[in-house]
Amino acid sequence: MIKRIELFKESGFKDKAFNKFLVHDSPYMKVVNFNFKAGQELPIHSHEIDGQVNITVLEGEGEFLGKDGAAFPANTGDVLIADISEPHGIRAKSDLRVLVTIAPPI
Amino acid sequence: MIKRIELFKESGFKDKAFNKFLVHDSPYMKVVNFNFKAGQELPIHSHEIDGQVNITVLEGEGEFLGKDGAAFPANTGDVLIADISEPHGIRAKSDLRVLVTIAPPI
Repeated sequence: MIKRIELFKESGFKDKAFNKFLVHDSPYMKVVNFNFKAGQELPIHSHEIDGQVNITVLEGEGEFLGKDGAAFPANTGDVLIADISEPHGIRAKSDLRVLVTIAPPI
Repeated sequence: MIKRIELFKESGFKDKAFNKFLVHDSPYMKVVNFNFKAGQELPIHSHEIDGQVNITVLEGEGEFLGKDGAAFPANTGDVLIADISEPHGIRAKSDLRVLVTIAPPI
Protein backbone atom coordinates (compact mmCIF):
# COMPACT_ATOMS: atom_id res chain seq x y z
CA MET A 1 0.00 0.00 0.00
CA ILE A 2 1.34 3.39 -1.00
CA LYS A 3 -0.64 6.56 -1.66
CA ARG A 4 -0.03 10.25 -2.10
CA ILE A 5 -2.40 13.04 -1.08
CA GLU A 6 -2.03 16.69 -2.11
CA LEU A 7 -3.77 18.25 0.87
CA PHE A 8 -3.52 21.86 -0.25
CA LYS A 9 -5.34 20.96 -3.47
CA GLU A 10 -7.75 18.34 -2.19
CA SER A 11 -9.03 20.04 0.94
CA GLY A 12 -10.29 23.59 1.42
CA PHE A 13 -12.06 25.76 3.99
CA LYS A 14 -15.69 26.20 4.99
CA ASP A 15 -17.36 29.32 6.33
CA LYS A 16 -19.75 27.70 8.79
CA ALA A 17 -17.41 25.25 10.54
CA PHE A 18 -13.98 23.73 10.19
CA ASN A 19 -13.44 21.35 7.30
CA LYS A 20 -12.51 17.77 8.15
CA PHE A 21 -10.91 15.51 5.54
CA LEU A 22 -10.13 11.86 6.21
CA VAL A 23 -6.70 11.21 4.72
CA HIS A 24 -6.13 7.64 5.87
CA ASP A 25 -7.60 5.04 8.17
CA SER A 26 -5.94 1.69 8.78
CA PRO A 27 -5.26 -0.67 11.67
CA TYR A 28 -2.02 1.32 12.23
CA MET A 29 -3.04 4.95 12.19
CA LYS A 30 -5.84 7.37 11.46
CA VAL A 31 -4.84 10.55 9.63
CA VAL A 32 -7.22 13.51 9.42
CA ASN A 33 -6.71 16.97 7.94
CA PHE A 34 -8.56 19.83 9.64
CA ASN A 35 -8.76 23.24 7.99
CA PHE A 36 -9.93 26.13 10.13
CA LYS A 37 -10.80 29.61 9.07
CA ALA A 38 -9.68 32.35 11.47
CA GLY A 39 -11.77 32.07 14.61
CA GLN A 40 -12.84 28.46 14.14
CA GLU A 41 -11.67 25.85 16.65
CA LEU A 42 -11.63 22.22 17.62
CA PRO A 43 -12.71 22.49 21.25
CA ILE A 44 -10.79 20.82 24.02
CA HIS A 45 -11.63 17.13 24.23
CA SER A 46 -10.13 13.82 25.35
CA HIS A 47 -10.94 10.12 25.25
CA GLU A 48 -10.24 7.61 28.00
CA ILE A 49 -8.42 5.23 25.70
CA ASP A 50 -4.84 4.24 25.09
CA GLY A 51 -2.91 5.91 22.31
CA GLN A 52 -1.42 9.23 21.26
CA VAL A 53 -2.26 12.01 18.88
CA ASN A 54 0.13 14.10 16.78
CA ILE A 55 -1.21 17.49 15.71
CA THR A 56 1.04 19.16 13.12
CA VAL A 57 0.45 22.69 11.83
CA LEU A 58 0.94 22.71 8.05
CA GLU A 59 0.07 26.36 7.51
CA GLY A 60 -1.19 29.31 9.49
CA GLU A 61 -1.31 30.66 13.01
CA GLY A 62 -3.33 29.58 15.99
CA GLU A 63 -3.19 28.20 19.49
CA PHE A 64 -3.02 24.71 20.90
CA LEU A 65 -5.47 24.38 23.78
CA GLY A 66 -4.92 22.40 26.96
CA LYS A 67 -6.66 21.84 30.24
CA ASP A 68 -7.32 24.65 32.71
CA GLY A 69 -7.45 27.23 29.91
CA ALA A 70 -3.88 26.71 28.77
CA ALA A 71 -3.06 28.05 25.30
CA PHE A 72 0.24 27.77 23.40
CA PRO A 73 1.22 29.09 19.98
CA ALA A 74 0.36 26.75 17.09
CA ASN A 75 2.16 28.08 14.04
CA THR A 76 3.46 26.53 10.81
CA GLY A 77 5.83 23.70 11.69
CA ASP A 78 4.70 23.33 15.29
CA VAL A 79 3.81 19.87 16.55
CA LEU A 80 1.73 18.92 19.57
CA ILE A 81 1.94 15.35 20.80
CA ALA A 82 -0.45 14.23 23.52
CA ASP A 83 -1.95 11.13 25.04
CA ILE A 84 -5.47 10.82 23.67
CA SER A 85 -6.61 10.89 27.30
CA GLU A 86 -5.00 14.32 27.80
CA PRO A 87 -7.34 17.24 27.04
CA HIS A 88 -6.30 18.95 23.79
CA GLY A 89 -7.74 21.26 21.17
CA ILE A 90 -6.78 23.96 18.69
CA ARG A 91 -8.01 27.42 17.73
CA ALA A 92 -7.25 29.35 14.52
CA LYS A 93 -6.06 32.95 14.48
CA SER A 94 -5.54 32.89 10.69
CA ASP A 95 -6.64 30.30 8.16
CA LEU A 96 -5.02 27.20 9.59
CA ARG A 97 -4.24 23.79 8.09
CA VAL A 98 -3.52 20.98 10.53
CA LEU A 99 -2.69 17.29 10.12
CA VAL A 100 -3.74 14.96 12.93
CA THR A 101 -2.31 11.44 13.22
CA ILE A 102 -3.80 9.08 15.80
CA ALA A 103 -2.17 5.76 16.74
CA PRO A 104 -3.56 3.32 17.31
CA PRO A 105 -6.59 4.62 15.38
CA ILE A 106 -9.72 5.58 17.30
CA MET B 1 1.77 13.36 28.42
CA ILE B 2 1.59 16.46 26.30
CA LYS B 3 4.43 18.27 24.57
CA ARG B 4 4.92 20.94 21.94
CA ILE B 5 7.81 21.16 19.50
CA GLU B 6 8.61 24.17 17.30
CA LEU B 7 10.29 22.32 14.45
CA PHE B 8 11.20 25.36 12.38
CA LYS B 9 13.10 26.79 15.35
CA GLU B 10 14.50 23.61 16.86
CA SER B 11 15.78 21.87 13.75
CA GLY B 12 17.90 23.23 10.90
CA PHE B 13 19.83 22.08 7.85
CA LYS B 14 23.28 20.57 7.35
CA ASP B 15 25.54 20.91 4.33
CA LYS B 16 27.03 17.43 4.33
CA ALA B 17 23.90 15.31 4.77
CA PHE B 18 20.27 15.61 5.72
CA ASN B 19 19.49 16.59 9.29
CA LYS B 20 17.51 14.11 11.37
CA PHE B 21 15.70 15.22 14.53
CA LEU B 22 13.87 12.79 16.79
CA VAL B 23 10.62 14.48 17.79
CA HIS B 24 8.94 11.68 19.69
CA ASP B 25 9.32 7.99 20.42
CA SER B 26 6.75 6.01 22.36
CA PRO B 27 5.06 2.62 22.23
CA TYR B 28 2.45 4.24 19.95
CA MET B 29 4.43 6.12 17.32
CA LYS B 30 7.86 7.33 16.32
CA VAL B 31 8.02 10.86 14.93
CA VAL B 32 11.13 12.10 13.12
CA ASN B 33 11.78 15.40 11.34
CA PHE B 34 14.11 15.26 8.34
CA ASN B 35 15.47 18.45 6.80
CA PHE B 36 17.09 18.20 3.38
CA LYS B 37 19.02 20.81 1.52
CA ALA B 38 18.38 20.91 -2.22
CA GLY B 39 19.87 17.75 -3.76
CA GLN B 40 19.95 15.72 -0.56
CA GLU B 41 17.81 12.61 -0.30
CA LEU B 42 16.64 9.72 1.84
CA PRO B 43 17.27 6.83 -0.54
CA ILE B 44 14.61 4.25 -1.27
CA HIS B 45 14.37 1.70 1.52
CA SER B 46 11.89 -0.67 3.15
CA HIS B 47 11.65 -2.98 6.14
CA GLU B 48 9.95 -6.35 6.23
CA ILE B 49 7.86 -5.50 9.26
CA ASP B 50 4.24 -4.62 9.94
CA GLY B 51 3.23 -1.00 10.16
CA GLN B 52 2.87 2.16 8.11
CA VAL B 53 4.75 5.40 7.61
CA ASN B 54 3.31 8.86 7.03
CA ILE B 55 5.68 11.30 5.29
CA THR B 56 4.34 14.86 5.37
CA VAL B 57 6.03 17.76 3.57
CA LEU B 58 6.08 20.77 5.89
CA GLU B 59 7.99 23.08 3.56
CA GLY B 60 9.72 22.96 0.23
CA GLU B 61 9.74 21.03 -3.02
CA GLY B 62 10.98 17.58 -3.83
CA GLU B 63 10.00 14.13 -5.01
CA PHE B 64 8.71 11.06 -3.26
CA LEU B 65 10.58 8.00 -4.51
CA GLY B 66 9.07 4.56 -5.09
CA LYS B 67 10.18 1.25 -6.52
CA ASP B 68 11.24 0.83 -10.13
CA GLY B 69 12.43 4.45 -10.33
CA ALA B 70 9.03 5.99 -9.65
CA ALA B 71 9.06 9.66 -8.59
CA PHE B 72 6.09 11.85 -7.61
CA PRO B 73 5.98 15.50 -6.59
CA ALA B 74 6.55 16.10 -2.85
CA ASN B 75 5.60 19.70 -2.16
CA THR B 76 4.36 21.61 0.89
CA GLY B 77 1.20 19.94 2.18
CA ASP B 78 1.71 16.66 0.33
CA VAL B 79 1.44 13.43 2.29
CA LEU B 80 2.76 10.00 1.38
CA ILE B 81 1.42 7.01 3.30
CA ALA B 82 3.01 3.64 2.75
CA ASP B 83 3.40 0.25 4.34
CA ILE B 84 6.84 0.14 5.90
CA SER B 85 7.47 -2.90 3.70
CA GLU B 86 6.81 -0.83 0.57
CA PRO B 87 9.93 0.81 -0.89
CA HIS B 88 9.85 4.58 -0.27
CA GLY B 89 12.21 7.53 -0.20
CA ILE B 90 12.36 11.28 -0.81
CA ARG B 91 14.61 13.68 -2.67
CA ALA B 92 14.84 17.48 -2.20
CA LYS B 93 14.70 19.96 -5.08
CA SER B 94 14.70 22.94 -2.71
CA ASP B 95 15.36 23.05 1.02
CA LEU B 96 12.77 20.61 2.27
CA ARG B 97 11.30 19.96 5.71
CA VAL B 98 9.51 16.65 6.23
CA LEU B 99 7.77 15.03 9.19
CA VAL B 100 7.75 11.24 9.33
CA THR B 101 5.38 9.33 11.63
CA ILE B 102 5.81 5.59 11.99
CA ALA B 103 3.22 3.37 13.71
CA PRO B 104 3.81 1.13 15.39
CA PRO B 105 7.30 2.53 16.01
CA ILE B 106 10.28 0.75 14.47
